Amino acid sequence: MAQTYDVAVIGAGPGGYVAAIRCAQLGLDTVCIDAFKNPQGKASLGGTCLNVGCIPSKALLESSENFHKAKHEFAVHGVKVSGVALDLATMMARKDKIVAQFTGGIAMLLRKNKVAAMHGTARFVSGGEVYTLEVDDAGKQETVTARHVIIATGSSPRHFDFSPVDGELIVDNAGALAFDAVPPRLGIIGAGVIGLELGSVWRRLGSEVTILEALPTFLAAADEQVAKEAWRTFTKEQGLAIQLGVKIAAVKAGKKQVTVEYADAEGSHKLAFNRLIVATGRVPNSASVNAAAVGVEVDTRGFIAVDEHCRTHAPNVYAVGDVVRGAMLAHKASEEGVMVAELIAGQAGHVDYDVIPAVIYTAPEIAWVGKTEQQLKADGVAYSVGQFPFSANGRARALGAGSGFAKMLTDAASDRILGVHIIGPCAGELIAEAVTAMAYQASGEDVARTIHAHPSLSEALHEAALAANKRALHI
Amino acid sequence: MAQTYDVAVIGAGPGGYVAAIRCAQLGLDTVCIDAFKNPQGKASLGGTCLNVGCIPSKALLESSENFHKAKHEFAVHGVKVSGVALDLATMMARKDKIVAQFTGGIAMLLRKNKVAAMHGTARFVSGGEVYTLEVDDAGKQETVTARHVIIATGSSPRHFDFSPVDGELIVDNAGALAFDAVPPRLGIIGAGVIGLELGSVWRRLGSEVTILEALPTFLAAADEQVAKEAWRTFTKEQGLAIQLGVKIAAVKAGKKQVTVEYADAEGSHKLAFNRLIVATGRVPNSASVNAAAVGVEVDTRGFIAVDEHCRTHAPNVYAVGDVVRGAMLAHKASEEGVMVAELIAGQAGHVDYDVIPAVIYTAPEIAWVGKTEQQLKADGVAYSVGQFPFSANGRARALGAGSGFAKMLTDAASDRILGVHIIGPCAGELIAEAVTAMAYQASGEDVARTIHAHPSLSEALHEAALAANKRALHI
Repeated sequence: MAQTYDVAVIGAGPGGYVAAIRCAQLGLDTVCIDAFKNPQGKASLGGTCLNVGCIPSKALLESSENFHKAKHEFAVHGVKVSGVALDLATMMARKDKIVAQFTGGIAMLLRKNKVAAMHGTARFVSGGEVYTLEVDDAGKQETVTARHVIIATGSSPRHFDFSPVDGELIVDNAGALAFDAVPPRLGIIGAGVIGLELGSVWRRLGSEVTILEALPTFLAAADEQVAKEAWRTFTKEQGLAIQLGVKIAAVKAGKKQVTVEYADAEGSHKLAFNRLIVATGRVPNSASVNAAAVGVEVDTRGFIAVDEHCRTHAPNVYAVGDVVRGAMLAHKASEEGVMVAELIAGQAGHVDYDVIPAVIYTAPEIAWVGKTEQQLKADGVAYSVGQFPFSANGRARALGAGSGFAKMLTDAASDRILGVHIIGPCAGELIAEAVTAMAYQASGEDVARTIHAHPSLSEALHEAALAANKRALHI
Repeated sequence: MAQTYDVAVIGAGPGGYVAAIRCAQLGLDTVCIDAFKNPQGKASLGGTCLNVGCIPSKALLESSENFHKAKHEFAVHGVKVSGVALDLATMMARKDKIVAQFTGGIAMLLRKNKVAAMHGTARFVSGGEVYTLEVDDAGKQETVTARHVIIATGSSPRHFDFSPVDGELIVDNAGALAFDAVPPRLGIIGAGVIGLELGSVWRRLGSEVTILEALPTFLAAADEQVAKEAWRTFTKEQGLAIQLGVKIAAVKAGKKQVTVEYADAEGSHKLAFNRLIVATGRVPNSASVNAAAVGVEVDTRGFIAVDEHCRTHAPNVYAVGDVVRGAMLAHKASEEGVMVAELIAGQAGHVDYDVIPAVIYTAPEIAWVGKTEQQLKADGVAYSVGQFPFSANGRARALGAGSGFAKMLTDAASDRILGVHIIGPCAGELIAEAVTAMAYQASGEDVARTIHAHPSLSEALHEAALAANKRALHI
């Protein structure tokens, strides 16, 4: 019988591999078991994020943005280019190379930290003082025993019967990152983060893009004002056609195109696309682990039930990341992984769930942390608003990125920052300052009195803080 | 006799106009007197920063970076461009338009805040309870009286006799932002921020650039490791020729070129350039105000002597920005302006001089706040170092910007952050988080436990903090 590990981590996405590394750093004998295979059939660590999510999408967003800029934005800079042409194979190869570097990097990090890595799908066989897991790698079974188990199995694209993903004409996020040609007409079901990011990529590369969204509200999770500005930019400036309040009636894949029948407030419609991306949310991967065998409870939506410290109902079994409640975000998963590792090691692990940033990597980027204005209204909180447009920010104008704004919401009585919402250049980086300030329960005045480099985009946040205190300098 | 103002501000750069606006917001009758004229001979607010400094240089840095990327970096993205050509007139017109928008914006902000604006050079005539200033606008004189005076006259390029700036072949920062053609061979005296930024602009546009620096050390103010990485990037990768320890012997302007004779450790040299930029630092503009008339003291280097609250030796006279001690940075000037306005209004104004960020807008950008490693060594402080390369950061690699690193220095005993140094993509934005953390006297662990969005460049700072605590996750 092989050794009994201190910790077995199921899944090597940003929740799992980070938990495993942190466990090993804290002196725990750790094994990390992952089931992901890349299109070449090889084990590839890093989960959805590295393989078919965050990293490849950001590579394509940058490349497609360069293509767009060369075609449409360089002339005003005095940079004359003739004959801008797309070499999609090279663009995809660059993306694949970046993904390979980082997934390979995870393998190296596990080795460096002395985490044992196993490939296969792990399921609980029995519990008690020691948990027994069966790991199945394409029919080949091994048994792993561990005193603690961290479930970090992530999530998968939600598929509906009406939109059968075939990986050819109808794809999910994975397929949408690997088209071999630019579809002239691209349909997307779902106007969430994935739909908007992938829609942006293909729109910039030349597709006519239609996004069909079931909800009547655009970007309901974002601050309403941000959502409104995003809507204006995406639809009016960038030419994405977005239909809200859509009920899909039928999706039919033909030989060369996909037909989508749907209804909205205006009646019934039928559209034909060369490719269709289904981006209708994600579901937790809780089925494969055989949770019931050891008393790990799964809620009605398929999430593994955990407390605020990611403890399941089974002793010494934890679950982190997309497979548990909360935002499906890589950094939330990683921090939960760190917390759990520290708890297992007897330390005081903690995640501050109130200050988790969210980013949408469109152009302009969208990022926020804390409460939206509509949430504060619903909660009956008296608040102040400070807002500053990037059109009045020198760095933004120098960059040619003067649309959007930074907005700060503060408690009307205490001035404590309750939320920060940014739509504009580098929003995903600028939000880091807001997160840090909120982690310190900063007031608007604190940010207003902190020196911001000039010229920098971060001055927009500074001015939003000044504005929340009714003392804006530059507007 | 006209009204006696509560406050007269001399200068409408980032120190002066911000001071004036803040004074007015606090209910003080304020006049702002500025002498700057643009090349068209028109009054133009905003000082060096807006007219011939921060803003126009950033516009050209972005445009030239686009030119460079189109020529050299787009192919790997699968963006094929043929016939990349430079239209320098358009590039310059874009820059001029941005400058005009912002200088015009300052005029609007002064009006909106009910600050009286005057054009001309102001000098003290007499002091006492009320100060009398004479304002000379091309020979036309007016008198202004005010109970408080804020001197914000800024600085000018330092000119040496050996390098006579003629505005044609030999120029300073202003001229270097307005060449009408790309000089095939460009010489720059001074490898400071201005020399490096302008050298980068013209190098990208095709000039062969040689920078001659008197000091034996490159970027002595920066952290040594950052300076070393910058040196490697600028000289090896970007082809800037930088000579250190140079003593200029003679500068001679001919009809079409400038000859520079200099000596260094290897002997005597003679180089010919099509244009020469003199960027040998800046000197405070303290002469024009006739400081002695009212007992305002000027030190031996020409700086107006002030205490930590920017009070001069004359009662109710303050001085802020480049004309006083400290870093010649726009944001330092603005914050001093705010502080002084609040002090005049009876509030508790304060500038935290320990957390002023510095940024160099090269590519990669360089930014830092707090102490360098060499300063800590000299001070005998026991410290820890945490460092993370952008080559291991997913967002950076997706952006194609994987060179450089983020570095955090923490107190070995208390873990308090003592300095943060970044060379890499968006360094000038990423530093904002570090400034905020240091303003709170944060520990490395505080930043390590703050959630950073994934994927983002700000994760490099997170990892540097983790590394300073010997618990890096991704390296």
